[in-house]
Amino acid sequence: MASDVLDVTFAALADPTRRAILARLARGEASVMELAEPFAMTQPAVSKHLKVLERAGLISRGRDAQRRPCRLEARPLKAATDWLENYRQYWEESFQRLDTLLDELKAMDNTDRQAEGHS
Amino acid sequence: MASDVLDVTFAALADPTRRAILARLARGEASVMELAEPFAMTQPAVSKHLKVLERAGLISRGRDAQRRPCRLEARPLKAATDWLENYRQYWEESFQRLDTLLDELKAMDNTDRQAEGHS
Repeated sequence: MASDVLDVTFAALADPTRRAILARLARGEASVMELAEPFAMTQPAVSKHLKVLERAGLISRGRDAQRRPCRLEARPLKAATDWLENYRQYWEESFQRLDTLLDELKAMDNTDRQAEGHS
Repeated sequence: MASDVLDVTFAALADPTRRAILARLARGEASVMELAEPFAMTQPAVSKHLKVLERAGLISRGRDAQRRPCRLEARPLKAATDWLENYRQYWEESFQRLDTLLDELKAMDNTDRQAEGHS
């Protein structure tokens, strides 16, 4: 069950237009027409993305039949964030190793320059 | 570019087997055979998932031709975590609203019970 939530959430987030739609809705609800405009997309193309987001529970649609405004439903993002938090120590360690390597390379470069200066 | 990283990272994470493989590799590197065992999957099926993870830069393969051990490369998960962190306030607010609603329902229920007790 929790796994299914992660499946559909991550799949919904794997598209730049869908992520941009969520970013837009984080600023307030919007109609399909309002969402289609900045993306230079047709309304049917936007509607297709909205269906994926709605199935993932990431947006809800208003009842106003004309406008059916879309609203961000951020709750499924908690499960995704929680899952990724388990890996924080791994990427933090990975960046620390990279920093150490760069420091070592800089130190080697300085030693080389000094050696050249003395030759 | 950063968008492409998010596309392939989120797509790679949208599968329970691939997430389980990453969880296993977080405990240390493993060969395809070692990865296939707990999943009761064939090695070709696991290899297919490993290719998706490798393309997303989430794992690397060792040079040992026989074993080619897989290793977790957690760095792309930072971008995904950073993207999701932008939405933390939204799901936190959403859970707070749910808590408030539940408190209100509990308070109403208590009032009802008290009213019944007095009748």
